[in-house]
Amino acid sequence: MMIKAVVFDVFGTLVDWRGSVSAGLADFGKVRGIEADWVGLTDAWRGAYKPAMDAVRKGNRGWTTLDELHRDALRALGPRFGVEFSAADLDELTGLWHRLTPWPDSAAGLLALKQRFVVGSLSNGHVALQVNLAKYTGFAWDMIFASDMFLHFKPDAEFYLGACRFLNLSPSEVMLGASHNDDLTMARRLGLKTGFIRRPMEFGTPDERAEPSQDWEVVASSVVELAASLGC
Amino acid sequence: MMIKAVVFDVFGTLVDWRGSVSAGLADFGKVRGIEADWVGLTDAWRGAYKPAMDAVRKGNRGWTTLDELHRDALRALGPRFGVEFSAADLDELTGLWHRLTPWPDSAAGLLALKQRFVVGSLSNGHVALQVNLAKYTGFAWDMIFASDMFLHFKPDAEFYLGACRFLNLSPSEVMLGASHNDDLTMARRLGLKTGFIRRPMEFGTPDERAEPSQDWEVVASSVVELAASLGC
Repeated sequence: MMIKAVVFDVFGTLVDWRGSVSAGLADFGKVRGIEADWVGLTDAWRGAYKPAMDAVRKGNRGWTTLDELHRDALRALGPRFGVEFSAADLDELTGLWHRLTPWPDSAAGLLALKQRFVVGSLSNGHVALQVNLAKYTGFAWDMIFASDMFLHFKPDAEFYLGACRFLNLSPSEVMLGASHNDDLTMARRLGLKTGFIRRPMEFGTPDERAEPSQDWEVVASSVVELAASLGC
Repeated sequence: MMIKAVVFDVFGTLVDWRGSVSAGLADFGKVRGIEADWVGLTDAWRGAYKPAMDAVRKGNRGWTTLDELHRDALRALGPRFGVEFSAADLDELTGLWHRLTPWPDSAAGLLALKQRFVVGSLSNGHVALQVNLAKYTGFAWDMIFASDMFLHFKPDAEFYLGACRFLNLSPSEVMLGASHNDDLTMARRLGLKTGFIRRPMEFGTPDERAEPSQDWEVVASSVVELAASLGC
């Protein structure tokens, strides 16, 4: 493998969105004296993400950042969970997705990879979200690749290939690191190398999603382990 | 001033392109046993940069990266300096612009600013060039803003305003740091804050270009000094 760059999915692969967002919602509830199923709301919130993106991807909705999609989804979900969110609440809670706790190995693994490779994000977050998240987590990106640079969300081919083109690399010189088989499936179809990272706790309890569905070039249990597989 | 981000011009402001490129050309000449006015060639090379960009900016030429502009210009200049460059030479020497020595204060100043601000580049270099240059110099960008993200070169307004939009900030919340009055003039016209950094040695000998032409919000003699003016 002649890899020159490793780019990463972020939500789930590098950060624990479920633990972070549900804790943030619970804090919000405590301050306001509201009780609700905050973990259930977190899962429903994340669940609303793919159909909302797909509406944009299929052209049923104009370009929309993840902040706007998150805000709309939370507003729509509030009543089902017995919570009425004000406009200010929606703004504040949408910001939870800018401050997600990394898995313990993520920052160190990226730093190790940086010694030999260009290390970038390849996340559906927009630039502003990703810049905030990188400052919060300490992820030392060489380059952030964000959906609003392409006006496409993954798994649109334009996003993966656009990142390769910006780096002036052929797809086969770029590895995608991700904990999601569908993300890697598209990357492989486009000629990128693939590195699967097991994140059994992403959805709260380990299930089959945390196991590789194909013979990815690398299968690892942490970013540090992925880095070691690549000689870092 | 309610500044949230500081973005920087790079060539001249943060790195010594003239010293670095002329040294690289001289090394090339030494290895090949070629004598020439390498410093003169460097100045002519840099001189060819603005008209070449302007041809793209005015639509007389389609989108072209700085690497391509640099390569074309060096090929055209060779004969005037009595040097015939092969295709491989042109590729190799174009790469000199990816490995430019920083001024002594640049990396430390950016790091100081990062504690309080989002710190980005705002350079006519393309993504691949800037990623290489950041790895070479150790510049710890929060975000790289590159011409190929906008398909515009500075001083096109789209570049400055596009960076603000990506950061989800209004222009008045963003400061441009630059050693060039014309860059700051456009930034101010668009509503950005302006920080002038004196680089008297950029062109080899100090001249009036190294002095502020307007009452920029900050005038400093280094990035460290600029950071200190902003409370870092």
